[in-house]
This record gives sequence, C-alpha cells and structure tokens, in this order.
Amino acid sequence: MNQSYEKLQKYMEKGVALVHAMGLFGWDAETLAPEKSLEKTAKTVGILSSEYFASLVNPEVKELLKELKEAEDLNEVEKAVVKKMAEDVRDLEMIPPEEFQAYNELTTRSTAVWAKARENNDFASFCPVLKEIIAYQKKFAGYAAKEGQKKYDALLENYEKGFGMEQLDQFFGKLKEEIVPLLKEVSKKNDTIDKSMIFKEYPVEKQKEFCAFLAEYIGFEKEKGTIAESAHPFTIGFHNDDVRITNHFLLQNLESAIFSVIHEGGHGIYEMGVRDDITQTCVGGGASCGMHESQSRLFENIIGRSKAFWSPLYGKLQQMYLQQLGDVSLDAFYHAINKAQASLIRTEADELTYCLHIMVRYEAEKKIIEEDYPVEELPKLWNQLYEEYLGVVPPTDTEGILQDIHWAQGSFGYFPSYALGNAFASQIYHQMEKDLDMETLLHEGNFAVIDEYLREHIHQYGASRSTNRLLHDLTGEDFNPDYYVNYLKNKYKEIYQL
Amino acid sequence: MNQSYEKLQKYMEKGVALVHAMGLFGWDAETLAPEKSLEKTAKTVGILSSEYFASLVNPEVKELLKELKEAEDLNEVEKAVVKKMAEDVRDLEMIPPEEFQAYNELTTRSTAVWAKARENNDFASFCPVLKEIIAYQKKFAGYAAKEGQKKYDALLENYEKGFGMEQLDQFFGKLKEEIVPLLKEVSKKNDTIDKSMIFKEYPVEKQKEFCAFLAEYIGFEKEKGTIAESAHPFTIGFHNDDVRITNHFLLQNLESAIFSVIHEGGHGIYEMGVRDDITQTCVGGGASCGMHESQSRLFENIIGRSKAFWSPLYGKLQQMYLQQLGDVSLDAFYHAINKAQASLIRTEADELTYCLHIMVRYEAEKKIIEEDYPVEELPKLWNQLYEEYLGVVPPTDTEGILQDIHWAQGSFGYFPSYALGNAFASQIYHQMEKDLDMETLLHEGNFAVIDEYLREHIHQYGASRSTNRLLHDLTGEDFNPDYYVNYLKNKYKEIYQL
Repeated sequence: MNQSYEKLQKYMEKGVALVHAMGLFGWDAETLAPEKSLEKTAKTVGILSSEYFASLVNPEVKELLKELKEAEDLNEVEKAVVKKMAEDVRDLEMIPPEEFQAYNELTTRSTAVWAKARENNDFASFCPVLKEIIAYQKKFAGYAAKEGQKKYDALLENYEKGFGMEQLDQFFGKLKEEIVPLLKEVSKKNDTIDKSMIFKEYPVEKQKEFCAFLAEYIGFEKEKGTIAESAHPFTIGFHNDDVRITNHFLLQNLESAIFSVIHEGGHGIYEMGVRDDITQTCVGGGASCGMHESQSRLFENIIGRSKAFWSPLYGKLQQMYLQQLGDVSLDAFYHAINKAQASLIRTEADELTYCLHIMVRYEAEKKIIEEDYPVEELPKLWNQLYEEYLGVVPPTDTEGILQDIHWAQGSFGYFPSYALGNAFASQIYHQMEKDLDMETLLHEGNFAVIDEYLREHIHQYGASRSTNRLLHDLTGEDFNPDYYVNYLKNKYKEIYQL
Repeated sequence: MNQSYEKLQKYMEKGVALVHAMGLFGWDAETLAPEKSLEKTAKTVGILSSEYFASLVNPEVKELLKELKEAEDLNEVEKAVVKKMAEDVRDLEMIPPEEFQAYNELTTRSTAVWAKARENNDFASFCPVLKEIIAYQKKFAGYAAKEGQKKYDALLENYEKGFGMEQLDQFFGKLKEEIVPLLKEVSKKNDTIDKSMIFKEYPVEKQKEFCAFLAEYIGFEKEKGTIAESAHPFTIGFHNDDVRITNHFLLQNLESAIFSVIHEGGHGIYEMGVRDDITQTCVGGGASCGMHESQSRLFENIIGRSKAFWSPLYGKLQQMYLQQLGDVSLDAFYHAINKAQASLIRTEADELTYCLHIMVRYEAEKKIIEEDYPVEELPKLWNQLYEEYLGVVPPTDTEGILQDIHWAQGSFGYFPSYALGNAFASQIYHQMEKDLDMETLLHEGNFAVIDEYLREHIHQYGASRSTNRLLHDLTGEDFNPDYYVNYLKNKYKEIYQL
C-alpha cells in the first residue's frame, strides 16, 4: 500500500469512527434516550464533533492529500477516499469558525421559532429569522462556489453533484409540461377510486407484525438490521452489518407504516449492500442523496405500489384484517394505494403529485437565492405556485410555506434530490425490466435476484462511484427524465383509464 | 479558575465524552444493535478507546497533573478530578502496551473457552487459559502494588479502595462465625415457608407494567431514565439526566423481574442524584463498586423485601394476578420472597446466603494470588469451601467453579465488593432508621424523602468523596460489619421464628 495513503487512512478511520459514534447518539436520541437527556448529551456530541473536525482539518492531512492527489498507485476505492476527504476538508474549512458557530446557534434557535410560527400560522414571526438564514446561505454559497458558478448551483451541488439549475430546469420543465396536465385529467376522475378502507381501524400490533414480515420479505436482513419506532421514520446505516430503520404506526391508516417500512427498507438494503472494503471508509454511504432516495422510492413506489408485488402478499394482509379487508379485492386495494389527489402537504403526497410539491420549492429557492426575492412576499409566491402546479391554494401558511422544517434548518438546495430520486428510480427500473423478468420475480417474491441486481450495479460501490457514473454504467445513458415522465403517464393512464 | 486546571479540564472532558460514547456502544450492543454488527462496530470502539488513552496519557496532562497536585486554589471537586485523573493515568500507563494487547487478546479468547468448558462441564479445558490469566493478574498486581503492598491487596484496591485483606479477613471472619451457623438453623426449618406461588405462570406483559410502575414508585425518574430489556439486567449511567436500566422477564418467576428492577433502580437513583457540577466529570460515577452495590442492595433487599414496603403495594400486585395470588396473604408473600436456602449458584442466591457465595470466591482468590495454589486443584478447593460455608457440594463444575464469567475476564478482587455492598447498605440503613421514620415512609410509599436523604448524604457527591469518608460522615464511624450481621440475624430469626 502507498505509505502516504496508509498514514491518511488512520485519519480517515478516526473520522469514520467519530461519525459512527455521533450517528449512534442521533439514533439513540430518536429511539431510547430519555426525554431530558439531550441537553447534557449535546456536550458529548459537541466534543466528538470537534474531534472530527480536528481529525480532518490539520496540516498533516492537508500535506498527505496534496501528495496523494496525483498518486498513480492507488486503487479505485483509495482514489475515491482521497477525493472525498479533500472535499470534506474543503467543506469544513470553507466557513470561518466564528461564522459557523454563529450560524449553528441561529439554526438551533430558528427551528424553535419556526415550530411556534407553524403552530400559530404566523409567518411574520418566522420572517426575520428566515432572512438571517438566507443571508448566511448566500454567503456560504459564495464560499462554496467555484469560479463563475452561481450561488444556487453551489448549494444544489452540495446535495447532488452534477445537478445544477441547468439540469433541473430541464427536468422540472418536463414535469411541468407533462405532469401538471396529467394531474388535471386525473383530478376529473377522482371519484372513481374508493380509498376509504385504508382509513378503517387497523390494530397496531398486527401492523407491526406485518411490517416486520415485509422488511424481511424485501431483503432487509434482520441479523444486520434493527427496526425501531420513532416519531418520523428514518434510516441510518453505521456499516453494512448495522443498518437501522424506524417506523411509526397509526391506528386509522393502513398504508402509512406499510409504505414507510418499504421505503426505509429500500434505503437499508442499499446500505447493507455496500462492499466490505468500502463500508467503513468515508465513501461507505450511498452515492448521493438522490441515488439513496432512488432506492427507497424504487422499493416504495415502483415495486411496492405495483400489482405484481401485492399479488402474492395481499391474501396474507387480508387474512390478518379479515373484518376490514375481507370484501376488498386485490384490484380495489391496488387502486386505493395508488389514488392520486392534489393536496397541500408534501409528506402526505402521493406518487403522482409528489414531484409537483418539490417543483414549488425549487422555483421558490431559485428566486430566493438568485433573485433576492423579498422574504415577506414568499407566502404569496408559495400559494401562487401551488395553484399553478397543483391546482390547490393553502388556506393558511401552516399548511403552506410553514409546513417543512428544511429552510429553518438552513437546507436550501436539498429538496430537488427527492424528486431526482424518483426520476433515477424510473430510469433504473426501466433497465431492470430489460435485464430481468420483473413481473415474474415480483409474483414469486424473489427479492434475492432483485436485490442482487441492485447490489451488483449500484449498492456495492457505496459513494466510491458517482451517481452519474452509476446511472450511465447501468443504463448506457446519462440521466434522462423521460423515463420518469413515461412511467407516471403509463401508470396513471392505466389506473384512471384515461 | 486555576489556569492549569482549565487546561486539564479540556482533556478530562474529552475523556469523559469518549467514555460516554463507548458506554453508549455498550448499551446499544445489549439492546438494539443487530446480531452481526458487533465485529465491525468493534473497530469503531477500538479507535475511541485509543483516543481515550491518548487523551490521558500524554506529556501535557502529566505536566499539568504534577503542577496541580499541590495546588491550593482548587475546590473540592477540582481536587477530586485531579486525583482521579492521576490515578487513571497511572493505571493506563502501568502495563506495557504489548502486554496489555496480548492480555486483551487472551481474555477475548478466554471467555469463549470458559463458555464452552462450562457447557461441557470440562474444567480441564479451561485450566491452561485460566493459568495464563492468573499469571498476568499477578504480574499486573505487581505493577500496581505500592511499596510493601501484597499483590491481592493491590487487586482488591482496584475495586474498593481501603478494603484489603486485613479488612476483608475481619469482615468475612465475622460472617463465618455468625452467618454459617445461622444458615444451619434456618435450613432445619426450611419446610415452614411455601414459595411455590412465585413459580406459577405470570404473563409477561403485566410484569412489565408492574415493573415500570415500581421503578417510578421508588423514584427512578422516567424523563431522565430508560428501561429496556436485555439478557442480563444491568445499569449504565451517562450523566444525571440519562440513566438506563434493563430488565429480563420470565413467565414462571414472579420475583426475578421485580427484584431486578428494584435493584437496578437503586443503582439508577444513585446516578440520577449526582450533582450537576460533578456529573459530567471523571468523578461523575459512584464512589466505588461497593458503594454502588450498597444502593442497589439497600433498595432490593432491605427496603424491597420488607413488609412495610409491600404493605401498600401487594394489593395492586394481587389485583393484577388475581388467579395466581388471590388466596396468598401479604404475610405469605413476604415469607416467600425472603425464603433462604443454601444453593449452588451465586446469582440465584437469596439475601442470607449470598455473602457466603462471595466468601468462597474470596478465600479461593486469596490462595490463588498469594499462595500460588495449583490451578488444577481449584475445583476441589471450591467444592470444599461450598460444603464448609453453605453445606452443599456442587455435583458438577458447571454448577461449581465454572459458573461465573469473572475469572475468565480476568476480574480478580472484584467479588468482595458485592458482599461489601450489602454490608455498607446495612450500616447506612441503620443510620436512616435513626434519622427517619422509615416504617411510616415505606407504608406511605414516600420515596421522595428516602431518596432525598440518600442524595444529600451519598448520591450528590458521585466519586468526589471516598466510600470510607461518606460512610464515616453519615454514620459517625468507619465501616462496621456488625450492622450487616445484626440485620441478617434479626431478620431471619424473626422470619423463621428462631
């Protein structure tokens, strides 16, 4: 092994260990930690975080990174590690420590301000804080931007490399052109699908049992995974032998927990599939936010809401809830879980309208970062965009611009990766259908073959290969939003008989 | 604040944060971590452990400790921190790194060898490994021993400062003189107490509910504490706002989980009572193993097995299990949970015989460390001591010398702290009865007063004051085993009408 790399590896491994520890504190806070513990525990996490900073930002690491930048005797993973560490060091160093601290204090405070504003439908009380956050985000974007790069592009690339405004304008332009009119057609036939059975009472113990079964069914290995409960479902992977997902159960909603476990299970299977020589390195996670989301959405929506997936499973669910589902056919169930309806809240949106909610946020963020759009006017803009794309107008800001925590946390540029994830998933699935007999595999519940395919082409590489490269290697072309648009059009035309 | 102390504090806080993180990994391994995660997670814990070592063993810390040793401008807690850090540094440095590593590898291997030997009742297969461990322990004891100090004394003081062979010979001598004959008398009247109702079937969900109620009843604050399940119950405290206990439920044993939760609850209440300026320092834990055990045993046995404790509670338990306990009086229940009977397994021993199990181990360890007793002959010695103290002879080594994991882990000198804990508890309780109307408080379930008393005199200080000092300040005298002997004699004479 290259001797400089060996030295660098020590720092990398220390950083990975500290991230693992901080991740465990995060997981613990959402699951078993007592309510009053967080304040004092924050002190520990703060110290680990400083140690993480020091493990990367120091003269020796910089020297080693410089030396290794052009090294020829590194293998693919080692090269990826060097590249990722250089990026991490740049990101950590970019912001002056005093600004970083002031900003952290601001966002700690701002989420509380936001929560209260949301509760009271009082955008005005959130407005001054949001202005401060936006000012910081613009400043940070300026630090991050490469020469000639626009600020919003720099923010977008934080989350999804290679996907700036040029790519996204094209992507969302297509959605606007094709999905907005499709939704209008669908809306007219809304009464043709009955979804009421989903909201009967479904005792939670059985839901838990069915969801645990589902997780295993799709390939979430229980010896390497944990399923717990938390207020909002999420996934966290510590390494390929330790991947955790959470779920949340509602008595009067059958689909919430079921599609959460398939969604988080998809994230989890990705993390479990990372190769052993990659998993405990700084490129041990997924290739990008969008690629990660592509796997969860592929499982949740493309697979999880297909008739082929449910054909061997629905009988079991029906047996568990005979009273509620005894007279509901597979076909009726399939239609119910795919009913599309324009609504106000992103996190409750269906597969068809979800991307339109993202489009609203993308357009708003572009104006905020690039056009200095007046923050006071944002609720108006938000409502206009909802009306234009979804045909609904939020009656309150609580159900409008105040619904998401993201801006209060300073996450600008993050939302588009949710929509990209859906689009990547469609492109990947299109290829899977060429290479595999998906219909038969799903009818047989043969996830061994499905997961192995995804592992071979995507999961194993972790973040050692870029999203663009993985997409191109697998599908033979660059990102192409047509697959997503066609998938949605075909699916919803069939469901609504348009 | 003293400027050198301020510098030292940074190192101390880093060490405390790393111990917190390692503790969380330990807790997680016993609760939510997936089965196959441990091997890779060990890498992270290994790195944190090296960082902990480096945070204490370094030239600057040594220099600061030297400087601060005689500093006059430190407060009591700061002085305790300096003293504890100096001890920790000494302990960490004492063993040459190569030896430490070889020893760690040995004890990792040895617990597996021990587990197999226990399973197969095959002491011979464990014997060579045990010899190696003993050789290391003697060597380490040599490193640790102060001038003129005997090796076993050095090992004992690892766990309980101020309690070497001189004190323990006297302590166990008294037990031998008084408790061994008492047990003989009790054994003759063994048939007078019926315990069979304890082993009926008690559905586990209700046990969980009752145990959660009990934890809160005795003062384990649920906003600052977590109760989870694990194979063996234990307590871990991260700081005074985050204390975790576990429990284990058996369908056919009513008392196991109940007394576990009171025992671990006692440990937990100790950790929750540590003062805010002490909790996140290196003296934030309990004063010593024995003092910690004194609190758990005080709650479990002296309080938890008293009639006054159960008088307001038994009706509730009876209501929960009407079928099983409907015709069992409080008096019959009280006798059942206090039935004493010589047995083979320490962890299942009752309050009267428990200390005799410890006495066997103390006598054996003394011979092992101080008299080079032949390891091959240990099973014979073990069985002889059981016959002498408890009047029972293990039919197999599995039920005899192979029952405990401690020696396989290299813990020599640890067992006596269990017995000391019981004795400290009796001495403390004797004082509590003078200062408080315990009978009335227990009848009223007034644990606010009881816990406040313990907090004031013991818990608040963490490890900033020694066990001996705490005992002396509270009771006006040094450790005195008479209280323990008298407590047992009075209790069992009354129960068995001797």
